[in-house]
Amino acid sequence: MKFATLKDGTPDGRVVLVSCDGRRALAVPQIAASLLDALQRWSVVAGPLQERCDALNRGEAQGTFAFDPVACAAPLPRSPQWLDGSAFLNHGRLMEQAFNTPPIPQFDTVPVMYQGASDDFLGPHDDVPLPGEADGIDFEGEFGVVCGPVPMAASPAASLECVRLIVQLNDWSLRALGPHEMKTGFGFLQAKPSTAFAPVAVTPDELGDAWGDGRVRMRLHVQWNGERFGEPHGGEMNFSFGDLVAHAARTRRLTAGSIVGSGTVSNVLRAAGSACIAERRVIEKIDQGEIRTGFMRFGDRVRMQARFDDGSDGPFGVIEQQVVPAR
Amino acid sequence: MKFATLKDGTPDGRVVLVSCDGRRALAVPQIAASLLDALQRWSVVAGPLQERCDALNRGEAQGTFAFDPVACAAPLPRSPQWLDGSAFLNHGRLMEQAFNTPPIPQFDTVPVMYQGASDDFLGPHDDVPLPGEADGIDFEGEFGVVCGPVPMAASPAASLECVRLIVQLNDWSLRALGPHEMKTGFGFLQAKPSTAFAPVAVTPDELGDAWGDGRVRMRLHVQWNGERFGEPHGGEMNFSFGDLVAHAARTRRLTAGSIVGSGTVSNVLRAAGSACIAERRVIEKIDQGEIRTGFMRFGDRVRMQARFDDGSDGPFGVIEQQVVPAR
Repeated sequence: MKFATLKDGTPDGRVVLVSCDGRRALAVPQIAASLLDALQRWSVVAGPLQERCDALNRGEAQGTFAFDPVACAAPLPRSPQWLDGSAFLNHGRLMEQAFNTPPIPQFDTVPVMYQGASDDFLGPHDDVPLPGEADGIDFEGEFGVVCGPVPMAASPAASLECVRLIVQLNDWSLRALGPHEMKTGFGFLQAKPSTAFAPVAVTPDELGDAWGDGRVRMRLHVQWNGERFGEPHGGEMNFSFGDLVAHAARTRRLTAGSIVGSGTVSNVLRAAGSACIAERRVIEKIDQGEIRTGFMRFGDRVRMQARFDDGSDGPFGVIEQQVVPAR
Repeated sequence: MKFATLKDGTPDGRVVLVSCDGRRALAVPQIAASLLDALQRWSVVAGPLQERCDALNRGEAQGTFAFDPVACAAPLPRSPQWLDGSAFLNHGRLMEQAFNTPPIPQFDTVPVMYQGASDDFLGPHDDVPLPGEADGIDFEGEFGVVCGPVPMAASPAASLECVRLIVQLNDWSLRALGPHEMKTGFGFLQAKPSTAFAPVAVTPDELGDAWGDGRVRMRLHVQWNGERFGEPHGGEMNFSFGDLVAHAARTRRLTAGSIVGSGTVSNVLRAAGSACIAERRVIEKIDQGEIRTGFMRFGDRVRMQARFDDGSDGPFGVIEQQVVPAR
């Protein structure tokens, strides 16, 4: 099943089913008021939702309409928790050099993860209001999973069973503020403004073989102001989403709708490019001796889209956003 | 006005007004469905709530009932964001020694703050389920503020104007997990299980002179298993709540109902005792050469109550909780 959320002025928005080809949508108010509501009552609503989804894809559903990604909020405009890992160790190692921070202990064996704000997510085409260009505005292309309820201290295998949906996201970051917040030991706060999401959240079966071993085996194609920036592959994730969700749930239960992110998708081979500017900058420093790329300016745009290994478009749709000065 | 939330099986609970003497309660379903709902529509509901509150305190309201703190959830059982500072520098300096972590840069001039989970708060008398005693179970007595909407980049003065309610809380902590998470730079996650709150949230006017300069000038009396542990004074906070809220809102807007905490209340004078075990332990190490106090065991209880400077009970009520093994 493919879900999206249309903006309707309410905090959780209006959930719709999206057809296989991404062209048609079907509202399901008789089944769930919002995607969060559906996740909170998944065992009851999953069957009826699948029935409506099948009818939509057979062309037999009444009341379908053209799906407009520009009208979308994030699939979950707010969620109980947003926990973002750093599961691509290539990215983590490069960022240690970029930030000049001490080596992270047990880096290869214990995931690192920060807690982000989850009350005010951005839609896929929303402007990104930020206070100033001097903060080092950067995008971070990622995959993530939306969980059902996860009990405290669940194993990685049990945690993976709790994955309900897969999402694609842009974890907006302010690089001038990150190193100080890392050095406090209290973690990212000002360095992480509102996170944005691609319009469509999908059940794992929608990815076929591209969902395996707790990883999204797809390339994330990133463009900055219309130019290719990179297309790193999600299969290279060093920790699985089962590992990440279990890490998050070690001393707390997760309530339905909690989102866990992969961290910036990143590949060892330089040819893949990058999914964030900070990584490109440190690669320039290492490979060419100097940083050549600046961070984003107001008016800049970023575009992100996941594709299957055969080159076909992924089911998540496109993130395309512009950075603007906060009023 | 004094508010509490009774458990009713819904995620946000049922809001009630509490009388001046803390003995009577009055439901207000015709005005607000929950305290979060009231905060989201504060400009509309504050007047009607004050009218009902005045009637309650004059003994003229119909349908009042005995207020039972044991039936309470946290005033906000869930909130949009939970951001906890470390505004008592005495505590911060001692914790650097306790954790053996590097000095925090700009410690005296820039607040430190972490983002906690805000979807699953504990009520004042709820058991505290945790996975194991080896994690170093500790309490942290704090004050906090509940905000209305705060615009991005609001000044400390403007941020202080956004404070709607004041709360008293116990920021449960797992000390064996904290130092590693600080060293990752990503901040506390597993080290911070669900936070607990005293039953009553109050508007600032309820504190009289005890609310001033953006600080709660009251002593927080802490008992562990019935024995006095400390009663540090909140007036010694080195950053004001205006400073803390402004720090939180530097690169994001805060939505109504977001909670900002003071960090562990802590005083320079040793006679005040402590509001967390980790602080007592490092003081023992410094003053007596060895740590004598262990962390909490399953079955242990902690009690926290704020008192005015004249020794009278504060309006927040009592936190009294027992630590139990997670199922």
